[in-house]
Amino acid sequence: MYKVKVYITLRESVLDPQGKAVKQSLNSMNFPEVEDVRIGKYMELMIAPTDKSVEETVKEMCHRLLANPVIEDYTYEIEESVTK
Amino acid sequence: MYKVKVYITLRESVLDPQGKAVKQSLNSMNFPEVEDVRIGKYMELMIAPTDKSVEETVKEMCHRLLANPVIEDYTYEIEESVTK
Repeated sequence: MYKVKVYITLRESVLDPQGKAVKQSLNSMNFPEVEDVRIGKYMELMIAPTDKSVEETVKEMCHRLLANPVIEDYTYEIEESVTK
Repeated sequence: MYKVKVYITLRESVLDPQGKAVKQSLNSMNFPEVEDVRIGKYMELMIAPTDKSVEETVKEMCHRLLANPVIEDYTYEIEESVTK
């Protein structure tokens, strides 16, 4: 069994209104030192081993469903996990 | 300037209907090997140095705004970043 951590972030050039709202909330809650916030998604997938490489599978899943390649970037980490 | 990465996940005991929907979509898109999906949030914060420790600041922000401590856990990584 593999544990895969996927991080999906908006591309640098894409505006992040949600992050901006969070930044403003933090500023008004007495955290003026917060200068920028960008919000993305984090996913943990448990994947059973198959004939295909996990890496290929993860890339294909990110590309086809998990991320929107037009406005988002993704990175991932694959860990082998012994127990389910 | 510090770059802080915050990962917010639902607690183990909390149901994740969004993750379940993604799992089912992946299964029906010819990825039967996906056995579980949990979805969380990922945030990148740029924080200017102050007299307070960054770690304290981040914990307080997570507790008061970024995460819901009743149903969510958070972890974070702090990196020092030279350029803005």
